Amino acid sequence: MSLEGKVRFIGAVESANEVSKIKIFPTYLKGLRNIDQFSHLIVLYWLSLRDNEDERRILSVIPRKHPGAPRMGVFATRSPSRPNPIGLCVVRLLKIEDHGLLVEGLDALEGTPIVDIKPYIPRADAVPDATVPEWTSHGPET
Amino acid sequence: MSLEGKVRFIGAVESANEVSKIKIFPTYLKGLRNIDQFSHLIVLYWLSLRDNEDERRILSVIPRKHPGAPRMGVFATRSPSRPNPIGLCVVRLLKIEDHGLLVEGLDALEGTPIVDIKPYIPRADAVPDATVPEWTSHGPET
Repeated sequence: MSLEGKVRFIGAVESANEVSKIKIFPTYLKGLRNIDQFSHLIVLYWLSLRDNEDERRILSVIPRKHPGAPRMGVFATRSPSRPNPIGLCVVRLLKIEDHGLLVEGLDALEGTPIVDIKPYIPRADAVPDATVPEWTSHGPET
Repeated sequence: MSLEGKVRFIGAVESANEVSKIKIFPTYLKGLRNIDQFSHLIVLYWLSLRDNEDERRILSVIPRKHPGAPRMGVFATRSPSRPNPIGLCVVRLLKIEDHGLLVEGLDALEGTPIVDIKPYIPRADAVPDATVPEWTSHGPET
């Protein structure tokens, strides 16, 4: 079995705010067809600022933005420092534009490369009663 | 800006069924610390059978398992044929074992490489009222 895979960036965050603009590179624009049939999307992005050996070697962290959190394995956190610097956000789709998407709720900096976009399907993706430790309820969402 | 990133597989699906076993490679086992504080996880995996130029060039599909679906851009489907062959499943965590995890609901074949595991946090990830097109309600969840 191969131990590595190669991701190709399909776009980038053009502007980041409450409403963010995702630019999709021309090669991939056809992949957006009919995406406005969905109200929400799952966006996978590349945490390029963390794409270095030091950050990718980190296996546990204390989530400092969440008072009371104990030391956690990185796979038990949404920390951007992790073996594969892939971030994930559920966003609301506001608008398809000529070269991309306007979305609400994307927690990614301007310039962040986009890896994938998937439609959010509650039947598969919504687990409102999933249980979490108490410390996750303080501080930011993730 | 770089146009590519490299993912390193952190584990693999050891057995696939209603309950699947995810083996985590020894290097990464410390990343699981305290993961059982969460009932559900988001698993990102590498659709290695689709990791070839033909599959990665596909930009639109007709979701055939979903009767009535029109032609959709791949970013508006969960099709495994897409520019970056990354699959995403929300799973229930049943048990931490010595070398990995037992999970329920992982839609990945035996031998599938694992890219990342993240805790499922309803505050960020659950959108029960997200709207979807009617065709998604027939056939499999994704």
